[in-house]
Parts: sequence; C-alpha cells; structure tokens
Amino acid sequence: MTDDPYLIISSDCHAGLPTEEYRPYLDPRFHREFDDFLAGRDRRREEMTRLGVRNEAFADKWFHDNEEGLKGGWDAAQRLKELDGDGVAAEVVFPDADAVDSRTAAPFGVGLGLSGDQDPDLGMAGAQAHNRWLAEFVSQNPERHCGVALLPVTGEVDRVVAEIHRAKESGLGALMIPSMWVDKAPYHDRRYDPVWAAAAETGMPVVTHSGAAPRHEYGDHLGIYVSEVTWWPSRPLWFLLWSGAFERHPGLRFGVAESGCWWLPNLLWFMDRLYLGAHGGKKLSPFAELKRPPHEYLDRQVFICATNTKRRELAQRYEIGVDNILWGSDFPHPEGTWPNTANWLRNTFHDIPVAETRRMLGLAAAEVFGFDTAKLAPIAERIGPTPEDLGQSADQTAVEASWARSREVGRHWLTDHDFPVLGVQ
Amino acid sequence: MTDDPYLIISSDCHAGLPTEEYRPYLDPRFHREFDDFLAGRDRRREEMTRLGVRNEAFADKWFHDNEEGLKGGWDAAQRLKELDGDGVAAEVVFPDADAVDSRTAAPFGVGLGLSGDQDPDLGMAGAQAHNRWLAEFVSQNPERHCGVALLPVTGEVDRVVAEIHRAKESGLGALMIPSMWVDKAPYHDRRYDPVWAAAAETGMPVVTHSGAAPRHEYGDHLGIYVSEVTWWPSRPLWFLLWSGAFERHPGLRFGVAESGCWWLPNLLWFMDRLYLGAHGGKKLSPFAELKRPPHEYLDRQVFICATNTKRRELAQRYEIGVDNILWGSDFPHPEGTWPNTANWLRNTFHDIPVAETRRMLGLAAAEVFGFDTAKLAPIAERIGPTPEDLGQSADQTAVEASWARSREVGRHWLTDHDFPVLGVQ
Ligand SMILES: [Mn+2]
Ligand SMILES: [Mn+2]
Ligand SMILES: [Mn+2]
Ligand SMILES: [Mn+2]
Repeated sequence: MTDDPYLIISSDCHAGLPTEEYRPYLDPRFHREFDDFLAGRDRRREEMTRLGVRNEAFADKWFHDNEEGLKGGWDAAQRLKELDGDGVAAEVVFPDADAVDSRTAAPFGVGLGLSGDQDPDLGMAGAQAHNRWLAEFVSQNPERHCGVALLPVTGEVDRVVAEIHRAKESGLGALMIPSMWVDKAPYHDRRYDPVWAAAAETGMPVVTHSGAAPRHEYGDHLGIYVSEVTWWPSRPLWFLLWSGAFERHPGLRFGVAESGCWWLPNLLWFMDRLYLGAHGGKKLSPFAELKRPPHEYLDRQVFICATNTKRRELAQRYEIGVDNILWGSDFPHPEGTWPNTANWLRNTFHDIPVAETRRMLGLAAAEVFGFDTAKLAPIAERIGPTPEDLGQSADQTAVEASWARSREVGRHWLTDHDFPVLGVQ
Repeated sequence: MTDDPYLIISSDCHAGLPTEEYRPYLDPRFHREFDDFLAGRDRRREEMTRLGVRNEAFADKWFHDNEEGLKGGWDAAQRLKELDGDGVAAEVVFPDADAVDSRTAAPFGVGLGLSGDQDPDLGMAGAQAHNRWLAEFVSQNPERHCGVALLPVTGEVDRVVAEIHRAKESGLGALMIPSMWVDKAPYHDRRYDPVWAAAAETGMPVVTHSGAAPRHEYGDHLGIYVSEVTWWPSRPLWFLLWSGAFERHPGLRFGVAESGCWWLPNLLWFMDRLYLGAHGGKKLSPFAELKRPPHEYLDRQVFICATNTKRRELAQRYEIGVDNILWGSDFPHPEGTWPNTANWLRNTFHDIPVAETRRMLGLAAAEVFGFDTAKLAPIAERIGPTPEDLGQSADQTAVEASWARSREVGRHWLTDHDFPVLGVQ
C-alpha cells in the first residue's frame, strides 16, 4: 500500500474560454455591453503591464514554449493530456485559464478579479455565461473535474441563491465568491445567511481565490500588490468565523485558494488565544455567536487550497492541520507546477510521511469537493507517481518517527508547549 | 556583568491629559469645535461598548483597583513612581493613557485612532495641542521619556514638515503617523518624500500604533476587529519598502507598535523570496526602486515596538532579528504588563540568553530612539531587575548553546535551510 501510486487531486486549476467565445453562453440582452467589454481589453492589458503583473518578454516566451498545452485551458481532450502528464487524476476548476494575458477572461471581469462592487446585472450575466460553459466542459469527464461556479454574492440574495441551485443542477461542485465586498455588505452580515444555507444544502464549498485587491492604492508597485494579495482572500475567513456563520451553518465549508497556508498557524494561534482567554477570565463572553474555539470550526469547516506548498509551510502542517492542506498545481498558470509537477513534488515532499502526503495531495480534497475516489482509482493507477518516484523512503516507520516530536507538539497553545516544533528531529 | 540589573526601556507607553484639560494647549480658533468634540464623548463610549472593545464591569474594576497609578497617565511624579515600580528606566510615550474609557483622548480623535481622513485643520490643531502638552510633560525628566509627536501626515506637506521641526525643537523624539491613509494618498506616493526626509534629518523615527481599523466593516463583532487590527499598522511597512522610500531615505527609521511581531518572519520570508527570485531569473528587475533585498532594509531601518512579546514570538527572534524587537510595557493600558512587569518578564524571558534580553528589553530601543544610556545607568542600577530576578541561569554558556541551532539557521531562506528551527534544542 505504501507503494501504490498517488491519487492526486489538484485543488487549484483554471479553465476559461477565449473571451469572445463566451458570446453564445451570454444572455443576448448583454451582447452590446459585451462588445464594450471586448473593446477594453488592450487598455486592461496595458494596466497590468504598468503594475508589472505582466511582463512582455516573459509572455512571449510562455506562449511560444507552451502553445499546445495551453489550449488545455478550454479544450477538454488537450486538458486530459496535460493532467495525465502531470500525474493529476482530478482537479478543481477555477476561472481564468490565461493568467498572463487574460485572453480567457470571463465577460465583464467576473473571473479571479470578481469584486463586490461589480454591477449586479452585468456580474450575474457574466458569471452565468462562464458557469454555463463550465458545466458543459466538466460534463465531458465529470469524475475528473469539479467546476467552480462564479457567484457574485453581493447582489440580490434571491438571485444568488437561485444561481447556487442552478449551478448545482448543471453539474458544478463549488462556489467562488469575491474576496472583497468593497462597498457592499461585509460577509458577517446576516443578509448572507440564505446564501450560506444554500451552499451547505447543496454541499457546495464556498471558496475565495487570490487576484482581487485594492490596486488603486498600489501605484505601479508590484511588490505591494504581491505582499498583500493573499491577505484579501483570507479575510472572509475571520469575518465568517467571528460572526458565527460556521456555528449557524455547520454544513458550510469555506476555503481560500492560491494564497498559501503560511499565514494560518499565526491566525489560528491568535484567534484561539483571544477566544480561550476571554472564556477563562469572564462569566459573559464577548463571543456569544461562537460555541467552541476557532480551531474547532477550522478543522470542521475550513480548508486551504494551498497550491504549490512551500517547504516552510509543510513544516507547519501540524499547526495548520494536515487534513486542511489541499495541494494544487495551478494548471495552466505559469506560477504553478505544470508541466513539471513530478519533479516539483519530489523536491517538496521527499521527506514527508507517505500517509500524510496522500491526504494533502488528494484524499483531503476528495472529501471536501466530493470526488469519487473509487472512480478515480484506475486513473491514479495509470498516471500517478509512486512514493518512490517522489524519493520517499520505504522505511516509513523511521520517517514517521523523525516527525514525531513536531506532530506531538502540534498546536502548541493547545498542548501546553510554548513553541511549535518544526522540521525533522 | 551578567548580574548587572537590566536597563529597561519600554518602547510602548502612553500619556495623555484628561480631554478637557487640553483646552489651554489648543489654538483658540478651534475652541468651538472642541466643545462639540467634548459633547460627543458619551456617544463614542457607547459605540465602543457596542463593539465590545469596552466592557462596563471590567472598566469599573480597573479604575477602582488602579485609581492612584492611573494618574501617572498625566501626572509626572506619579508616573515615575509607576515606572520605578515596574523596573522601567525609560519609555517611549504614545498618546491615549486611558485605553478603557478614552477619558484622555486628544482633541478631535487624533490619538491612537488618528486616521488619514481626519479633517486636516482640526487634525493638525488637535495634534499640536497634544504635542505641546507632551513636550512640557517630557521636559520634566527628559532622559527618561521620548515623546511621540502626533503627525497627521496626509495633510498639506509643508505644514507636516513644519510640525516635524517644531516638534523636534520642542523636545519630542518620534513621530506617529496614521496606520490608514483612507481616501488620501497611500504612503508609496512621492508626495511624502519631504516628510520622510525631514524625519531622517531630525533623527525622529516614524511609527504607527495599533488602534485605527475600518470599524464600519465589522458590525459589532469584536473578534473581527482584534483579528486584523494589527494588520493595518503593519501595512505601511511594505508600502514604504517596495516604493523605495528606505532606499531614497537611508536615515529614515520606521516602526510598528503594539501589533506583535509574530507576522514579521512570514512577511520577510515572502518579500525576500519575491525580490531574490526576480533577481535570480531576470536581467531587468521589476523592483527597480530597491537596490538590496528586503531584509537588508528591515535590519537597517525598521524596528518593532513589540510590547508584551509572547513566547512564540521570542522563539522566532532569529528570523525577526533580535535587534529589531523592542519590548514595551504598554503602561498604563490594561492589556500591558503594568503593574506586574517583573513577574511577567520572568515568565517570558527565563530561558532567553541574557545578552539578547538586554538588547530586546532596552539597548535596541536606546539606539532607535536616542536615549542616553549613560544617564540612565544609575536609574537602572536602582530599579532594574537582575537576570537572577528573571530566573535566568548563571551558566550563560549553556543557555547560549541551547539556542545555537536556532540562531545558526536563523532566516533559513538565506542560510540554505528549508525550515526554521524554533526553541531550545
Ligand atoms: Mn489558482
Ligand atoms: Mn494562479
Ligand atoms: Mn501601546
Ligand atoms: Mn495598548
């Protein structure tokens, strides 16, 4: 069993049509606005270049070197070839295949840049266009894809709830909400309760993905953008948690994608201490909406689509929770591991216990997103790398032992230790 | 020398007049607005109570138990008694002595809540009223206090620069700017260059302090506020860094107060990798405003007024930089260590090397804020706790050795290690 190939599920991949091809999926009432949107593409590309998010020379080389594989962004047959080549049996499919030139942006910018201040009518129309196409796309191989529906959640609640049910019935499996509500109601607001209830009822996890940020504040300083672009998608986590959304909706699952997981141990330590400290000293709690400490909600309902996990992050996995870390390749983005996933996995996971690697590379994601591991098993058997391929030792007893101290201390504030213990001992 | 008492400098303390007593320090042109401000106090207290920042029962007990000592918030003789009792030889003095009921709020809310969208005329008038009083206050024992001038930096640049020079000449030693610029120019903007130049020229460190946050987004959820109130004061750090402010103004020193230091290792790791990765792979850098990696600016120009450092934070001190951590008591705030500082230090520093403890408890702050350690030596001799008082071992060779591995690995991304090593080995 230690030698079985890995069942790898990427919890962070991207697909999207070349923008103009969304037209037939878009309600014809919005075709005129769609022409205006298409006409603005050059201007938006210039803005990205100015901020430094886009680099002309890099873009040329990227498209030249990967011309065929990048078609997997919207071509199902090509996509399977690329997933197979990477050893990835299944995937969670976010929008915006093209992260370099935005050639596959969904109508009206409702992809990764989806933001709370989007015009509600255009936002829902654009989201539905993408959602309709994506449902078709994933239906070709439903066992290998979980399509993420775009959900402009700050709009009219009835329409948002209706779109959740429509998306679910169409075959999509998760919901992406904007990281930023901007001028709309923050996510602690009870107005969203019917939305969270519908997400729980349909079993669709709610996810944010990095991309949107208050760029108007950054000038043309790329470093500022990159330094905080992972903070904005993680922010809804503490808005939901402290307002009791996880308590009121125990079936709600919430995740943060492509924002790393390095920030989670500090956040959890900080929130647990706040909650437990208040409960230790006072009869009446200022946190009446919570019935248990933050880490219990986290382990029960929160997950991190941690994408290309760093070694520093893996060292912190006993604080984060091994089952809360969902690896992802970010195919077909250049910041991801495609098309060199096998090498990348070897460099990153070589000394991690096999049992834990299985959770982080696929089994945890299967549970969160509802993949059928029995159906995926033959695919994994055919394409998955083995522990040996990842350079992992046959002597797993020794490997487990080398991490024993780190695992035992775990979340040190709950195990009566002052410090975390990171790394092999 | 190992047995010498500690020279303790608190890099985070607070003083402020009972609000109505600011009147004689305020330009009479604003006395009518001051009456309006005073009339709004009850409403503001109710708002704090609703958010849960203020707790009626706690407030009653706090003021009852500490009536005499709390007068040290504005009474110089009482203050020295309290500092002496805590073993604190010198201090950096921020505004807002009363963090429970805001009875010592500076006019027009320009204290810890100072925000970029403050009316510029009222903001400067209120700041000057506090700055004038504070200059008088610290002049009674100049060697023991470094007064922090309030600087509404988003106002007209000429007036801001003039206030820096006025504050310096009046005897103040540092500058507090708002954490949030709100609707004004972000701190990467070149409009602030004359301000940073004046701060460097006068040798006055620029500091943010936690307090302001976008509270309108939080509803009445205290947990949300506490979870991110430390992020907003740290945010200017990466705006200054990536926009090259530290490169253009090598004499500028910037610090973040009462926001912990647990977030710094991740930030530094993240920023260094971004900068070094871009430089490794490309001929032209997208970070042209920087001439060296982020950690070099940090070590040269940034410091953290880390207040009541947690054990978890001390374990990370070789990533943060021992010399970048400035301890503080937060006198006379209830979230600080007063009046139990000696016990608190013992619980927190007992296994930390004495030489490093000396840096974090005082010597680093002396350099940043320009305290005269020779003048402070007799005071420290009289009131400072000894290493033995802190429970620190006489066998410092063994203590140093227990941390050797953690110190050697340090910032692991610069020393060719995958993980940090935390804690004694
Ligand atoms: Mn992604
Ligand atoms: Mn990506
Ligand atoms: Mn403070
Ligand atoms: Mn305080």
